[in-house]
Amino acid sequence: MINNIEPIGAIHSPFQQKLGIPRQPGLAQSVESQIIFHPSLAKEETLRGLETFTHLWVLYLCHKSESWRETIRPPRLGGKKKLGVFATRSPHRPNPIGLSVVKIKSINPDHSITIYGADILDGSPLLDIKPYLSMWDSIPEANNGWVDNTPQLEALEVIIHPDALQDFNNLDLYTQSIIKETLRWDPRPAYSKDDGRSFTHRINHFDITWSKLDESIQILGIRPGQKK
Amino acid sequence: MINNIEPIGAIHSPFQQKLGIPRQPGLAQSVESQIIFHPSLAKEETLRGLETFTHLWVLYLCHKSESWRETIRPPRLGGKKKLGVFATRSPHRPNPIGLSVVKIKSINPDHSITIYGADILDGSPLLDIKPYLSMWDSIPEANNGWVDNTPQLEALEVIIHPDALQDFNNLDLYTQSIIKETLRWDPRPAYSKDDGRSFTHRINHFDITWSKLDESIQILGIRPGQKK
Repeated sequence: MINNIEPIGAIHSPFQQKLGIPRQPGLAQSVESQIIFHPSLAKEETLRGLETFTHLWVLYLCHKSESWRETIRPPRLGGKKKLGVFATRSPHRPNPIGLSVVKIKSINPDHSITIYGADILDGSPLLDIKPYLSMWDSIPEANNGWVDNTPQLEALEVIIHPDALQDFNNLDLYTQSIIKETLRWDPRPAYSKDDGRSFTHRINHFDITWSKLDESIQILGIRPGQKK
Repeated sequence: MINNIEPIGAIHSPFQQKLGIPRQPGLAQSVESQIIFHPSLAKEETLRGLETFTHLWVLYLCHKSESWRETIRPPRLGGKKKLGVFATRSPHRPNPIGLSVVKIKSINPDHSITIYGADILDGSPLLDIKPYLSMWDSIPEANNGWVDNTPQLEALEVIIHPDALQDFNNLDLYTQSIIKETLRWDPRPAYSKDDGRSFTHRINHFDITWSKLDESIQILGIRPGQKK
């Protein structure tokens, strides 16, 4: 049975690198990703009735996760406190299966699915989708464990350096918007929180260079990159 | 990477057979199951911080699911209407990965976890656990798709035939309670809904024989069975 666990497709997202991926689904609501099934599964039959749902679970492989440890230093805890891997949703786990709830935008004529708000690396192998049912899956009385005692995430202002303004304005509005939505959550890794350092990460086929400055993220440059 | 997906333990539950398993997590709230990790993972480190959560996701293999089809006839639709496998949560899917939210009862000194309300077959291979976070996972505004248009599940009365009463009363209160909790949801398969037919299924090490009678389930007999 185990040997039957195989990708049944892939997720295509704007996130070309781990850096810059929202740390939970739904933080960057307008980000669109595509669920692409293998041709043998991409058909009317397998998806019949899915159009009646608003939300989906996506199960996928965190395929760039190459190792795991018993304990994790969650970014939310400033990278200092260690928690057990099973007390976190880190992608670095014994079985690196990712689980994200996303909003359905459309089920497309080619039997792909466009979703909003995924926090999934481009090219992640798809394992399964399941309908989200609020009657079973929504448990408002469940708590948030240690996450509740961490500082509230606050969206930063995203500003554009004058040198980058022309290039930013040349982008289409969707790309402008997803760049801002992903940067405002301060994607710096926990181990590199010194202000002023610049980072570059790729969103779709653009390399975005930015740094944190006071309570904002400043976009320093935008350069076309080759989509991998 | 794919070849790394391997069981990391197993779930032990009272459900020895598919028949009688609640069709969603939480229907039989007092049912207790155990999450048992492989010895290499059953340690303080991997679970540190998990005690701060009330609920868990359990990812497991539906290891008795030997085949799947593109379409499913969901029991809730009376076994008549066909829906796409990806529009259902049937265990018979291309990758038979089960996903259940359960309540944590206790994290035990042997680093097993006792959970409430699982709808999981005994012996199911464990793939992962993740904390349930209501801030991410609870989406009350998500809908219930086609499930909303199905008849409301109503708990049946569970009555005990006089011939079975002595044996029932000899059971401990927990076993009495989980037998009633699982029977009251009418576990008959969709393709066999004719009243009067008797069914037998195993809960822990008891074989329970019952049939549906008017608006109740009648327990006809209780016999010790060998635990598999």
